[in-house]
Amino acid sequence: MKSIQDRRDGRDIALDRVGVTGLKRPAHAPVAGGGTQPVEGSFDLFVALGPVARGVHMSRFARILADFADPLTPSGVKRLLDTVRSELGSESAFVDIDFTFFVEKTAPASGAKSLMACPAMISASLDGEFDFVLTVEVPVMTVCPCSQEATGGPGHSQRGYVTISVRFDGHVDIEELIEIAESSASAPVYPLLTGDDERVVIDTALDNPVFVEDLVRGVAERLDSDVRVHWYHIEAENFESVSDHNVYAAIEFSR
Amino acid sequence: MKSIQDRRDGRDIALDRVGVTGLKRPAHAPVAGGGTQPVEGSFDLFVALGPVARGVHMSRFARILADFADPLTPSGVKRLLDTVRSELGSESAFVDIDFTFFVEKTAPASGAKSLMACPAMISASLDGEFDFVLTVEVPVMTVCPCSQEATGGPGHSQRGYVTISVRFDGHVDIEELIEIAESSASAPVYPLLTGDDERVVIDTALDNPVFVEDLVRGVAERLDSDVRVHWYHIEAENFESVSDHNVYAAIEFSR
Amino acid sequence: MKSIQDRRDGRDIALDRVGVTGLKRPAHAPVAGGGTQPVEGSFDLFVALGPVARGVHMSRFARILADFADPLTPSGVKRLLDTVRSELGSESAFVDIDFTFFVEKTAPASGAKSLMACPAMISASLDGEFDFVLTVEVPVMTVCPCSQEATGGPGHSQRGYVTISVRFDGHVDIEELIEIAESSASAPVYPLLTGDDERVVIDTALDNPVFVEDLVRGVAERLDSDVRVHWYHIEAENFESVSDHNVYAAIEFSR
Amino acid sequence: MKSIQDRRDGRDIALDRVGVTGLKRPAHAPVAGGGTQPVEGSFDLFVALGPVARGVHMSRFARILADFADPLTPSGVKRLLDTVRSELGSESAFVDIDFTFFVEKTAPASGAKSLMACPAMISASLDGEFDFVLTVEVPVMTVCPCSQEATGGPGHSQRGYVTISVRFDGHVDIEELIEIAESSASAPVYPLLTGDDERVVIDTALDNPVFVEDLVRGVAERLDSDVRVHWYHIEAENFESVSDHNVYAAIEFSR
Repeated sequence: MKSIQDRRDGRDIALDRVGVTGLKRPAHAPVAGGGTQPVEGSFDLFVALGPVARGVHMSRFARILADFADPLTPSGVKRLLDTVRSELGSESAFVDIDFTFFVEKTAPASGAKSLMACPAMISASLDGEFDFVLTVEVPVMTVCPCSQEATGGPGHSQRGYVTISVRFDGHVDIEELIEIAESSASAPVYPLLTGDDERVVIDTALDNPVFVEDLVRGVAERLDSDVRVHWYHIEAENFESVSDHNVYAAIEFSR
Repeated sequence: MKSIQDRRDGRDIALDRVGVTGLKRPAHAPVAGGGTQPVEGSFDLFVALGPVARGVHMSRFARILADFADPLTPSGVKRLLDTVRSELGSESAFVDIDFTFFVEKTAPASGAKSLMACPAMISASLDGEFDFVLTVEVPVMTVCPCSQEATGGPGHSQRGYVTISVRFDGHVDIEELIEIAESSASAPVYPLLTGDDERVVIDTALDNPVFVEDLVRGVAERLDSDVRVHWYHIEAENFESVSDHNVYAAIEFSR
Repeated sequence: MKSIQDRRDGRDIALDRVGVTGLKRPAHAPVAGGGTQPVEGSFDLFVALGPVARGVHMSRFARILADFADPLTPSGVKRLLDTVRSELGSESAFVDIDFTFFVEKTAPASGAKSLMACPAMISASLDGEFDFVLTVEVPVMTVCPCSQEATGGPGHSQRGYVTISVRFDGHVDIEELIEIAESSASAPVYPLLTGDDERVVIDTALDNPVFVEDLVRGVAERLDSDVRVHWYHIEAENFESVSDHNVYAAIEFSR
Repeated sequence: MKSIQDRRDGRDIALDRVGVTGLKRPAHAPVAGGGTQPVEGSFDLFVALGPVARGVHMSRFARILADFADPLTPSGVKRLLDTVRSELGSESAFVDIDFTFFVEKTAPASGAKSLMACPAMISASLDGEFDFVLTVEVPVMTVCPCSQEATGGPGHSQRGYVTISVRFDGHVDIEELIEIAESSASAPVYPLLTGDDERVVIDTALDNPVFVEDLVRGVAERLDSDVRVHWYHIEAENFESVSDHNVYAAIEFSR
């Protein structure tokens, strides 16, 4: 007997995405220089559903993921989507993977090492061709240029978050995107800073005041000159220290 | 002296969106039959920034919003964006407004009245022409058809959430979208149910088992036949009672 | 026939709290000087359940709340708990109410008015006697004293959040707690600031550098001298602009 | 010169907790039978601050954590707190650690293996003596007994979450607490279920209808009979499938 999912649905409506959300699984994120780090992945997995069948066999997503052991590289994720497509019998497969990436930071004066957590996401699809978008969110420090000039003094500083998404050819490390975000801000931030380090961070920040607009443009300039990157979306959000809301800027670009 | 924001930026990079996020303000959402209800709005307001100027005068967004008293109708939101565009001197203005909408529910047996909270969002832009997307998320009950057949019995039930977004001509009430979501589910849910009501809800649900795919297709059929709606995005997510993750389906359509 | 809830449970285990969570309902929060503002309340309602009965009639909570029209004052909340206690037949009733309170702010130079959203909570119980705890979370600006001295300059600033909870005799306005939080910080923050206002805020903040410890102690001093307040919990959390994590201080005191 | 933190504060107010929140760091959670699993820890670290000194040297928390390599066992966490206490020069040290624990589940019919993610927390202090509270939140399935009787049929089912916190002597595995939660529910849930498995889960659940009150009492009975456990807090929350809000029960017990 045909399963209910495989029976004919009379409504003749194809669905863009059918699948599961919030499947957690340990995974392995690639790190610069080779190798991986263990991460806690949250997976959303989907296929397209044509107009004929009533439903999708949802348990297959969990079965595929239970066996998934590839690193979260483009080729590893492509293999996951290949499997999804063939096991679910669909033309198109989609995955969104959220995880936290740890990058090693070195304090600017003391050289003290610490690990900083950056939220990261991979959003990929196999729909005719393979598409892979890598996203990372980076905490940074910003100093307001306007308030510096207005007060003839230091202005206000705050924490901001820069989110960079890229489509690229070849290979891009998450660490590269983090460095690009940090170098476009007033200063990087660090989990571990001695008093000497803090002085350096503040001096660096005061010498490099940036609007949220500057921050996004700074990242855009860097990515514009990177031949591997053929699409990007950049956004920055500042937790303004003088107000209760945030300021924001964003750009999307396709080569 | 020119403010820093108005000075020339040499990088020649236009930004898609520059503005503020998370500005809270009491507002008024339209209710079916006329009138409004007080809501707590969270506003994100943006303009596009051309390649020449260094920045945007952020304080103007908060000033405009402080004076905003229009209801959250298409014409009220258009006036807000008109003001943003002219005060900020930009070609394009964008707004996202999140709020909670209360709809009155009547229990099916006892007739008891209660108010149910549905998250809602308005996403609008004025960029050449005016665009207005209305979104509402509706809690519903679903019964799994597959598990009914498999067990020759009741199957499992769970809470689900249906999110409907529409672009439309003329006028669409939030209450209409809520009704469409509810009638496509196994049963509506209610804040207030007596024992008699609960029996009716459960019987209704057992008689109308739906996959998440069915739920989305059911809403799509209803919107397909509604001439006012020229674009929609529908998604449904079920908090499966037999597993620790959710199932999901989505469709986007443009007439 | 006895409902299942009213039948005897043989395990002889009393439960501290049984009830409903996340019931949303429009409500009315008291404002200084009299009157109320409409708020969106999220209610958790509980009773204690003795060792004999198997369960609680959950639908009664929703029915009581559907009829609740009192303001969120101590006497209004006491009436709600009185009703819960008698309708549910329990010795003890408990309620937690989350809402957003809007306070009018006046910019320091321009005098521009705007509304600032502060998360607020009421946590009350009727268990022998009536207990009422009022909590409000206030965004503020802080400047680090340490970094000022270290750099011989401005130091770093950031947004912080001060959360004040009080038990009191008589009457305390939410606005009073907000003012106490703000006056203990380096400077208040504002939704709406002109350039002139921003200069004043920054100058004020630079003249009043505070550690998170100072902020909490400053609030404690104010509450210590307030005879109405017989218990408080104060916490402050700074979104440090130089690092990716926050700093925190807390104190609890009972007279 | 004395650092600002070490200077005398004239207000004579001791603070309960001063420290850092949201410090992320890879860590190792103990698993049943020995060994550990890699987890992503979010650490809040505090000390008590006496009435004399103005502040705490915040950077020391991050330095201590950067070197922390012990597993998240009572003895490992005690070593962390010992270090905090001595490095910060305080009588009392506190830590809250949030992480996700993966437990292996075996589907009841097919025997298919999968990993289920359970939020876990360790809350510990060294304040005179050492205190260690282990918490885990477990997703489960519940079937309402009331609706079964009312409809003379299946009733409604939903996902629920059981949160167990224990203080104990000797050793308690996280997996033990998960098993206790699951066996007190109508049925466990699984990331991976075939059709046959789903039938077993549903049949099990229908044969074991439980109110949220029953669920908490069931866990309490199990912990009451466990001599290692000298304190517990149990809560359960059901995402009711017939309504838009949740039902809840809780108990705290100290031997």
